[in-house]
Amino acid sequence: MSNPSLLILPGDGIGPEVMAEVRRIIAWFGEKRGITFDVSEDLVGGAAYDAHGTPLHDDTMAKAQSVDAVLLGAVGGPKYDGLDFSVKPERGLLRLRKEMDLFANLRPAQCFDALADFSSLKRDVVAGLDIMIVRELTSGIYFGEPRGIIEEGNERVGINTQRYTESEIDRVARSAFELAMKRGKKVCSMEKANVMESGILWREVVTEVGKDYPEVELSHMYADAGAMQLVRWPKQFDVIVTDNLFGDLLSDAAAMLTGSLGMLPSASLGAPMENGRPKALYEPVHGSAPDIAGQAKANPIACVLSFAMALRYSFDLGAEAERVEAAVNKVLGDGARTADLLGEEGVTPVSTSGMGDAILAAL
Amino acid sequence: MSNPSLLILPGDGIGPEVMAEVRRIIAWFGEKRGITFDVSEDLVGGAAYDAHGTPLHDDTMAKAQSVDAVLLGAVGGPKYDGLDFSVKPERGLLRLRKEMDLFANLRPAQCFDALADFSSLKRDVVAGLDIMIVRELTSGIYFGEPRGIIEEGNERVGINTQRYTESEIDRVARSAFELAMKRGKKVCSMEKANVMESGILWREVVTEVGKDYPEVELSHMYADAGAMQLVRWPKQFDVIVTDNLFGDLLSDAAAMLTGSLGMLPSASLGAPMENGRPKALYEPVHGSAPDIAGQAKANPIACVLSFAMALRYSFDLGAEAERVEAAVNKVLGDGARTADLLGEEGVTPVSTSGMGDAILAAL
Ligand SMILES: CC(C)[C@H](C(=O)O)[C@@H](O)C(=O)O
Ligand SMILES: CC(C)[C@H](C(=O)O)[C@@H](O)C(=O)O
Repeated sequence: MSNPSLLILPGDGIGPEVMAEVRRIIAWFGEKRGITFDVSEDLVGGAAYDAHGTPLHDDTMAKAQSVDAVLLGAVGGPKYDGLDFSVKPERGLLRLRKEMDLFANLRPAQCFDALADFSSLKRDVVAGLDIMIVRELTSGIYFGEPRGIIEEGNERVGINTQRYTESEIDRVARSAFELAMKRGKKVCSMEKANVMESGILWREVVTEVGKDYPEVELSHMYADAGAMQLVRWPKQFDVIVTDNLFGDLLSDAAAMLTGSLGMLPSASLGAPMENGRPKALYEPVHGSAPDIAGQAKANPIACVLSFAMALRYSFDLGAEAERVEAAVNKVLGDGARTADLLGEEGVTPVSTSGMGDAILAAL
Repeated sequence: MSNPSLLILPGDGIGPEVMAEVRRIIAWFGEKRGITFDVSEDLVGGAAYDAHGTPLHDDTMAKAQSVDAVLLGAVGGPKYDGLDFSVKPERGLLRLRKEMDLFANLRPAQCFDALADFSSLKRDVVAGLDIMIVRELTSGIYFGEPRGIIEEGNERVGINTQRYTESEIDRVARSAFELAMKRGKKVCSMEKANVMESGILWREVVTEVGKDYPEVELSHMYADAGAMQLVRWPKQFDVIVTDNLFGDLLSDAAAMLTGSLGMLPSASLGAPMENGRPKALYEPVHGSAPDIAGQAKANPIACVLSFAMALRYSFDLGAEAERVEAAVNKVLGDGARTADLLGEEGVTPVSTSGMGDAILAAL
């Protein structure tokens, strides 16, 4: 049997820096655990634009379609701000999501015990927090047509279209309920059914899917109330399921609650491939952080934990994923902190690779 | 000269309860300050639906167009959940906003000193917070066509359209810059220009308007990053300007930061009328809170402060507005707390009318 295959797309800004630490962990798995991946690497985002004039080369797209999992760093940066919309770094990422049909974006918002005081929220509001946001990732206003900037009368009009089909809602809702079954058995669905017809359909379909999961408690919340409740008392939630655009805002707010933005991984999953595992792309929730790129300041943990998610969801190596997560927890408990996490007493500042060293030692 | 006119629309749930306290304050102004309003009252939302089968009667709409200002309580409730989209309570409010062309929704997120410990955020993150969110209110995905639920192939598709014209963006941006000139001289504009063409146009037009306000420091942020930054360090902001849908979520999150949801007013302003003052509707940020309606638990302060905003923006009575705001501050400092604000030591629980009594006494 051939080794599982992994395509690494470091991307821009701190992407390559955090990915370098993940590569060391991948190497460790080969040496110490006899788990070897066929790793290939390629360009995405601004880096791909610089090389090929496009944020995702067709060859890279084809590679992504053929591997067992893709691991992505981050895309974007001020250098590319002036580029035309069609070749912006983000388009590379969006093309991957769309063409791989990665409809379920799993974004855990977890508060690491050692970091509970680091949040802008009070300790008791966030300590022990563990929620999972399931964001629809291949449809909605991100991809709907018509779109663009048109001339009308004497002025320009900016247009985007939110479009959701029943089956698009159905499949992401199922992902959310399946996850809830393995967790706290609660799903909260968020939309604006009081204002948007697409939200009405969303609510109806999620309610229908919920009937197949009688053990799961389903609730509905308007997305604005959801944003409020996330800030007020996030522990009321277990799994949240929402659309592409609301998911973008709500998952970022939730990530920030934990005080651990540089810590949070994500998985974007599609339909099962021939081997039964879903098409998958893993990436940290944080961005390319151009302001600290190249300074050995970046926190590699989100990217390391994204690799752990890959172990769990793409390679059926849940125990190995836990090994990585435990190592990260130990390192944090021991007080190792990258620049984004400084501020408390009694901690040890480390560089990006210093954090990598510590995780490897803990493994 | 005739008295200034005010149309009161108490609406649903706790709306009538909080409005009753505002009426006492309006009466106080007549008796003690010789400032008399021509007050009329009418139905909106579920209450209007119950009486007329529509959430806003045409006569009420006509009245709203003719008065100097409208003061609204809240709309909606579970009783109306099953209603057809076209007659839901919210449609009454949306029709008022649209037909009065109230394009600039001003939502201050202020933390009251006496309540700083009440927030789920740490005291130093929110104490003294004073930001103003300017939300576009008459366009975007709330009103864009095409919209609806259509059949396509074998399934239904939910569709909504985000549409922004240059002039729609221009006028709300101007409102934001004008406000910033009277405040901290900073505007942060939020959109998703990395994903949505309407966001690209938004950023371009706001940048253009900014050139007319060289004293104001303009920055741009993606709305997801904005949601994060609001949670991380909200004091970095002065005025935030954003579209209808992002504004809905971001202003609710910002309101919750302050721990003072039951305290926050809003003003929705349109173009100047013949008398030079803007068309205007004032309403609390909180909703109709059906769970506590009829129990004398509701906090009337948001509605009282909405009336204060009316004094300032519609009636040129800035000093009287400050009188009301000072009375509210005093009452809070003295420890009066409605049910939503209980939990601290040494405070005095009061009912809705008890809070009204205290404010009147402080006036
Ligand atoms: C980079 C950008 C296109 C992307 C998005 O908006 O989806 C990012 O914010 C995210 O959440 O992954
Ligand atoms: C009641 C509802 C239609 C409304 C909105 O979505 O605008 C409310 O959430 C608000 O923010 O005023």
